[in-house]
Amino acid sequence: MKSFGSDNHSGVHPDILKALAAANVEHDMAYGDDKVTARLQQLFKNLFGAQAEAFPVFNGTGANVVCLQAMTQSHHGIICAETAHINVDECGAPEKHTGCKLLTVPPVDGKLTPESVKKHFEAFGFQHHSQPKVISISQSTELGTLYTPAEIKALADLAHANDMYLHIDGSRLSNAAAALNMPFKQFTTDCGVDALSFGGTKCGLLMGEVVVFLRPELARDALYVRKQAMQLYSKMRFVSAQFEAFLSNDLWKTMAAHSNRMAALLGAELAKLPGVKLAYPVQANGVFAAMPRKAIDTLLADYFFYVWNEERDEVRLMCSFDTTEEDIRAFLDAAKKAVM
Amino acid sequence: MKSFGSDNHSGVHPDILKALAAANVEHDMAYGDDKVTARLQQLFKNLFGAQAEAFPVFNGTGANVVCLQAMTQSHHGIICAETAHINVDECGAPEKHTGCKLLTVPPVDGKLTPESVKKHFEAFGFQHHSQPKVISISQSTELGTLYTPAEIKALADLAHANDMYLHIDGSRLSNAAAALNMPFKQFTTDCGVDALSFGGTKCGLLMGEVVVFLRPELARDALYVRKQAMQLYSKMRFVSAQFEAFLSNDLWKTMAAHSNRMAALLGAELAKLPGVKLAYPVQANGVFAAMPRKAIDTLLADYFFYVWNEERDEVRLMCSFDTTEEDIRAFLDAAKKAVM
Amino acid sequence: MKSFGSDNHSGVHPDILKALAAANVEHDMAYGDDKVTARLQQLFKNLFGAQAEAFPVFNGTGANVVCLQAMTQSHHGIICAETAHINVDECGAPEKHTGCKLLTVPPVDGKLTPESVKKHFEAFGFQHHSQPKVISISQSTELGTLYTPAEIKALADLAHANDMYLHIDGSRLSNAAAALNMPFKQFTTDCGVDALSFGGTKCGLLMGEVVVFLRPELARDALYVRKQAMQLYSKMRFVSAQFEAFLSNDLWKTMAAHSNRMAALLGAELAKLPGVKLAYPVQANGVFAAMPRKAIDTLLADYFFYVWNEERDEVRLMCSFDTTEEDIRAFLDAAKKAVM
Amino acid sequence: MKSFGSDNHSGVHPDILKALAAANVEHDMAYGDDKVTARLQQLFKNLFGAQAEAFPVFNGTGANVVCLQAMTQSHHGIICAETAHINVDECGAPEKHTGCKLLTVPPVDGKLTPESVKKHFEAFGFQHHSQPKVISISQSTELGTLYTPAEIKALADLAHANDMYLHIDGSRLSNAAAALNMPFKQFTTDCGVDALSFGGTKCGLLMGEVVVFLRPELARDALYVRKQAMQLYSKMRFVSAQFEAFLSNDLWKTMAAHSNRMAALLGAELAKLPGVKLAYPVQANGVFAAMPRKAIDTLLADYFFYVWNEERDEVRLMCSFDTTEEDIRAFLDAAKKAVM
Repeated sequence: MKSFGSDNHSGVHPDILKALAAANVEHDMAYGDDKVTARLQQLFKNLFGAQAEAFPVFNGTGANVVCLQAMTQSHHGIICAETAHINVDECGAPEKHTGCKLLTVPPVDGKLTPESVKKHFEAFGFQHHSQPKVISISQSTELGTLYTPAEIKALADLAHANDMYLHIDGSRLSNAAAALNMPFKQFTTDCGVDALSFGGTKCGLLMGEVVVFLRPELARDALYVRKQAMQLYSKMRFVSAQFEAFLSNDLWKTMAAHSNRMAALLGAELAKLPGVKLAYPVQANGVFAAMPRKAIDTLLADYFFYVWNEERDEVRLMCSFDTTEEDIRAFLDAAKKAVM
Repeated sequence: MKSFGSDNHSGVHPDILKALAAANVEHDMAYGDDKVTARLQQLFKNLFGAQAEAFPVFNGTGANVVCLQAMTQSHHGIICAETAHINVDECGAPEKHTGCKLLTVPPVDGKLTPESVKKHFEAFGFQHHSQPKVISISQSTELGTLYTPAEIKALADLAHANDMYLHIDGSRLSNAAAALNMPFKQFTTDCGVDALSFGGTKCGLLMGEVVVFLRPELARDALYVRKQAMQLYSKMRFVSAQFEAFLSNDLWKTMAAHSNRMAALLGAELAKLPGVKLAYPVQANGVFAAMPRKAIDTLLADYFFYVWNEERDEVRLMCSFDTTEEDIRAFLDAAKKAVM
Repeated sequence: MKSFGSDNHSGVHPDILKALAAANVEHDMAYGDDKVTARLQQLFKNLFGAQAEAFPVFNGTGANVVCLQAMTQSHHGIICAETAHINVDECGAPEKHTGCKLLTVPPVDGKLTPESVKKHFEAFGFQHHSQPKVISISQSTELGTLYTPAEIKALADLAHANDMYLHIDGSRLSNAAAALNMPFKQFTTDCGVDALSFGGTKCGLLMGEVVVFLRPELARDALYVRKQAMQLYSKMRFVSAQFEAFLSNDLWKTMAAHSNRMAALLGAELAKLPGVKLAYPVQANGVFAAMPRKAIDTLLADYFFYVWNEERDEVRLMCSFDTTEEDIRAFLDAAKKAVM
Repeated sequence: MKSFGSDNHSGVHPDILKALAAANVEHDMAYGDDKVTARLQQLFKNLFGAQAEAFPVFNGTGANVVCLQAMTQSHHGIICAETAHINVDECGAPEKHTGCKLLTVPPVDGKLTPESVKKHFEAFGFQHHSQPKVISISQSTELGTLYTPAEIKALADLAHANDMYLHIDGSRLSNAAAALNMPFKQFTTDCGVDALSFGGTKCGLLMGEVVVFLRPELARDALYVRKQAMQLYSKMRFVSAQFEAFLSNDLWKTMAAHSNRMAALLGAELAKLPGVKLAYPVQANGVFAAMPRKAIDTLLADYFFYVWNEERDEVRLMCSFDTTEEDIRAFLDAAKKAVM
């Protein structure tokens, strides 16, 4: 039975596994000096613009930390949503590794706004306070919502007007691109994003993320930053090959659009049930819904998913590339019975 | 053509790839709560003793840093050979992450001795000096040599007598076990080793290492230490499945013994060539040899390997699980011509 | 004219300067091995109990960081008020130095309560979250209020029941003791406090704070923690001599009671003015009051003080050991005119 | 009886204490916004050139760490002598705070040379190695020797040619200036030095050092770097007043020249004794001499000083601003008897 616990409960897309096997034919140089990684770097330039520099890493926390480390000194502050993965789900890795303080903002539907960010600008020039240097957002957000390109551009403009950077935690960036139905570049590079963590693991890869710097100055020392952050994979061709497959023939789009569609279906149908209320708009591959506690407990007997907010009886239901319409229908049937 | 550059220039053993595919059958829990990882943890108890606690991680630097972080406070010092991977090949990750100073010792054949370690004990109790807390050795060493169990025990006893720990960087521990022809436990747990990094990537896995703690107090906070060190793999079953295959049916031994044998052959034959001299005993899967500079340059035109010491014209030649006797013979033929 | 900007705008009490001069008679051992520091350590045992171990340091941030470093590993979290000095006024030093995340709580009158602290306990045992290990409170608080001994004991009991520590940032601990009219021990050691930063600089010393550990395990490595935190003063007798004078003949009490009295007078009289409202109870040496913005601006032309909350037009007025009743009366006269 | 243990065993020069008292007349702004600190900053511009930016701090370790932090990212390496204070006497504070690796060089008479430094340049461009970014030297050195301006310029030129900085640990910079009989600027700014720690505590101040940046880009974030390094002194006027007195009327020169002269006398006379041999040229205020072990033990019964090298029976004898010729003669008499 499928888990709705997380999009990392799924396995690996067969085409990704095939690409892994295909890369396993001979000896090759380690640490990124291989042919597959060279091709991947060009692929990222194609997708994000000529200035894009791609650095494959192991996992999402690693990708975020490498991005943030390249953008900060330890006396800086990193503005993010209270709900940001970097704030709540990385066991303090950003603080420990960068030495920076995370400056949190209560989000609206998981998102920052220029107004909410600005309250931290009072710190500028005051030596007792961490100096804001990065605005970090997630796209899609931890609450399954999306920034519009205009919203991203507004935050990037605000950042740049204050000598700051804009970072995207894009562990589900392909879900965002599929949902927006836009090329990646249109809502990142073209909006002024400076660095991003491009996700793979939650999108059907075996493992791997890619740090993408969109400004040359950030990429300059990236090899060392990645290595010191313990994110340099010796047999790098095996992560690059996965991304090459993922980004070829729109595989990423097929997979992401599917998981988004499953979430949309799940959300729309759940919302019709008595006592169930969507907590946030369903815009990517996650559904957040308040349900009667008794129904939650009944469902938990058969399904795996997380109660996201115990106080408000809100659950999170994540859809993956391999979640089927039958999986959704079966869950909805169970939910219907549970809320009776 | 095969590379002699590093044992991470090789690819993945077919049985390991098969195990990966076999693990890709359904949804499973993330972050180590899966069935494969549970089995792996038992497997490590079988191999290293009931007190062994295993924590899969991404790479060798990550494994070493997680071990060292669990054993230290930032005012501690970590004693290691000048040639240790943690000292020269991790871009300062151990210092940055643990905050400790590395206290180096000139090695003999890549190895520490109790006498060489003791010179750092003058620091004990003097508040201006980092307090020695860990002795870290590599087995097999970065110079292709081996510690005997007695040598390991002597260092462990010295460590424990001084309220310190003994750590093994075992990125090639299977090469050591095969060379010593001993169970892992006999030259680790039974000698008093407290923590070790158990290597996979250089031994034919796609990727992955395992942190093994042999004392309960070190394992206590390991989940958090690993996570904060950005070494927690969400789809962990895919690294655990590789190690399960590696450690089953003596696959590890077959692979390691083979690469050791190739190195022994290469070393023995090279040493017969005029002007060639082995720099260290060939005890695992690496050959270090001084050669005439002109011969080195000739060979480099056709083969990839590293000049390890430019001043002494010493080269390093690493053998992998898939290095064949034909590969060795072909290289020896080329070397014979080159030294003429 | 006196500043109401901060209690560190004042200078040094004459008796403290005298003690400095008296200590300047001959050569003495450095780094704390001098006679004055030995006497000071005994003095702290007298004041806080036999288990107290005192470590003089340079400044308040240093004292807090040394305390917190001794109590944590980097994967831990430190629970504190949003308004805590460690959270807002130390430029991220606690995060950088300890590697920990600060887990903030909206305070009530500047104070934590067991209920507000407990919401962070959801993190226990979940590897993605920093593990709460310290509750850090300020006494007197940054908002000029006081914890009762019962309130402190409740937090200490909560901490200990969860394998955590209770830390007091006591940069104004003498103001608290004078206001509570209690021996230091009664509201610290006797309530279960584990470590505290004992303030001097804001209380009329030239400079200096003392880290006081009330548990042997925390003091064990304190010499190294202090040194690595750059808080080891070589000519330590000159800070110890100041504290010796401060703690002798109840000088501390005379000074602290005086500044408290000046604040009480200032608060009581200000509150009578039209349009002025105290923001928090005046319980130590600080007065927080909302005033008409025009009056604030008028007063700022002649006096130095901080507008603490721009949105609510709240000002902070700090009294020092050398603030006189004439200073207060003159300010009140000016305030009276300003609010007309 | 005077100690020869360290120049921080002395007390405070009376003129410095007078300056402290004179600064204690009224309220003033904290954290460096006071009048005395403003004057001090101008004074440093007068001494080191218009580009000099001065930041008073608490102690020598703090000064060094603030300098190094401003010059590095954590993936950098800091080249220094094995005997450097930052390497052996700061309990790992530089590593912990900057995250950098210290790259050590065996010194000649306590000094680095361009040749000895260059061996670390092999690391450039290799992602596994910390990238050299700073050359840090001590002037006068930990072994009582001096760099000539030409030697300093050679290291600065080497640094700049490789996109690196040159830092001076100048805890005894006044001793160096007095010994060289040169203005400070001539052997620092004019030689290309980028940052320096200007010492006070070991030169007769109560406490205090000054971080001096000689390049605008290093000073830009210095306020935050100092604060986060726990080196921001709230009542800063009291350290600035000491330096103002020290740097006025050539007081520094009088004091430093005197301690140098005492060391010269001590060294010259000691060297005449049978079995005594100077270990290094006596060029500042320290004498390093090998003596018969029995003589050392006899002297230690009456005098305090350190056996610097137990294996070679070398002692260190430091002279302070208040060491008198009588003190020297008395020690020499005792030494004469001891070596009989």
